[in-house]
Amino acid sequence: MNEFELIARLAGAAPTNASTIVGPGDDCAVIDLQAPDQYLLFKTDATVEGVHFTDAATPEEIGHKALGRCLSDVAAMAGTPTHALVTLGLPEGFDVGFVEKIYHGMSALALRYQVAIVGGETTLNPGQMFISVAVLGTVPKGKCVLRSGAKVGDAIFVTGELGGSLAGKHLNFEPRLKEAQWLAANYSIHAMIDVSDGLAGDLRHILKSSGVGAELLSSAIPISRAARLGKQRDRSAKPPLESALTDGEDFELLFTAASHEAVSLLDAWKKQFPDLPLGCIGRITAESGLRIRDKKGAQPLAADGYVHFQKS
Amino acid sequence: MNEFELIARLAGAAPTNASTIVGPGDDCAVIDLQAPDQYLLFKTDATVEGVHFTDAATPEEIGHKALGRCLSDVAAMAGTPTHALVTLGLPEGFDVGFVEKIYHGMSALALRYQVAIVGGETTLNPGQMFISVAVLGTVPKGKCVLRSGAKVGDAIFVTGELGGSLAGKHLNFEPRLKEAQWLAANYSIHAMIDVSDGLAGDLRHILKSSGVGAELLSSAIPISRAARLGKQRDRSAKPPLESALTDGEDFELLFTAASHEAVSLLDAWKKQFPDLPLGCIGRITAESGLRIRDKKGAQPLAADGYVHFQKS
Repeated sequence: MNEFELIARLAGAAPTNASTIVGPGDDCAVIDLQAPDQYLLFKTDATVEGVHFTDAATPEEIGHKALGRCLSDVAAMAGTPTHALVTLGLPEGFDVGFVEKIYHGMSALALRYQVAIVGGETTLNPGQMFISVAVLGTVPKGKCVLRSGAKVGDAIFVTGELGGSLAGKHLNFEPRLKEAQWLAANYSIHAMIDVSDGLAGDLRHILKSSGVGAELLSSAIPISRAARLGKQRDRSAKPPLESALTDGEDFELLFTAASHEAVSLLDAWKKQFPDLPLGCIGRITAESGLRIRDKKGAQPLAADGYVHFQKS
Repeated sequence: MNEFELIARLAGAAPTNASTIVGPGDDCAVIDLQAPDQYLLFKTDATVEGVHFTDAATPEEIGHKALGRCLSDVAAMAGTPTHALVTLGLPEGFDVGFVEKIYHGMSALALRYQVAIVGGETTLNPGQMFISVAVLGTVPKGKCVLRSGAKVGDAIFVTGELGGSLAGKHLNFEPRLKEAQWLAANYSIHAMIDVSDGLAGDLRHILKSSGVGAELLSSAIPISRAARLGKQRDRSAKPPLESALTDGEDFELLFTAASHEAVSLLDAWKKQFPDLPLGCIGRITAESGLRIRDKKGAQPLAADGYVHFQKS
């Protein structure tokens, strides 16, 4: 357990109350504050210079990412974001024009999803820019999807293509809000998360919360062009499959549903979202742990996502 | 207009939507999300090492202040805080035990007001600790008190004693939640704010939002013992009255109500909160600007709070 995991454990032991449906440990907190048909979703994400973006990012991209990370978390609960607050920690002598463009990037994304930016704060943070966004959202009471609902036999799905997001997608991804809302409205989605830590890491979050295991099908993992190009350009880079399993910041949806719904779901998806691939990549198992299968058989997936296939 | 004011203007021009009752510019955002009788309150505050606290603060005090600042903002709307998210930006090699004590300070305060800490995030922030707390709360629809409701002729009230909070109170203040709720439940409070920028600065926020002016009575300003002691110990320190008008971070309530209610309110307050002074310190005027009156007459109060009284 590293220091950051220790802190997460502290946060998990924090005070709760009767209106808290889901506290720490899912993509958003889920809260019941007397609205008859809906829960509230509550989430913060920090975006820090040198950690989440570098000099290579435009200010508009920084703003997009800072808000988009939170919206992606709301999507992972099948919710609708409604309001955001923006906290900016800025070094002394910051460039007002640059910060204005960060707001433009955020506002463009907020407008697209009717999210109101209702305030926030600007303060000094010597050394680097620190952006913390807090988002409020809603979800119909029967349609909120948690990490904890995966069932043995479920099919596992992922949207889009994975890996290599540092080449650009981590700054200009589209949060999968309308896709998640459509899924929850039309199918019984058992568990869902957004891919921020990498497919393997985020699937492990679902498995841990649900008390199950999983087997992925190697040939079904959707590998992005960026992950393939990365390896072509730099032979010392991760193999594309490992990149797809572990890179993170894809901001795609990873979810499970009963396997007998898989064909109908894939068909309906193709009509609804013809431009966004949806892949069925494996199944939930009673046996705990995460395995990956190729034509030679199933192998455990290492914690770092490295695939220990035997050489052919 | 300095850089930070420019940023505030950018935030003020951000996207809004139909469920936003009050956006940027009050102590909290006010949101209507379908709960029949209540609005939601939504607020973030950042607490930064070297800006809002120094080495002299204990970790418990840092945690108390980080959450307490948000709770004080909820109090300023006469609301009830319900849920919080905690974002910690920590330098590399931080002390886990120190951070644990920050959580203890926050949790002790949260428990006292039944606030659930429902998650958050820990991330790297080289250089110094950066704590951003987001708080959600509720307020009965008819009882939410804004900055904008002050009326000509209103009496101006302030709780507690002001000035010199850097000597300690800024780290261990009690958010005036039950006092504000009692005020809104029993009286028609026209405008309210918590004293964070200093009495003069925060009263100016009320005046600007309400389109009115004010006259303070010099002898009625409640000056704290810390402000008086500060001047006794250091002759170059601000005069105690100036300290009370401008120091800030008192986290007391500053509010206005119809002057014909003043006597009844002061009487009832003394019975309800015998240990916390409430002072009537001036009145709202049609003439714009902020003036302060002593036995020699009324003088404009300078932007920096300096009181230009003639020498006697």
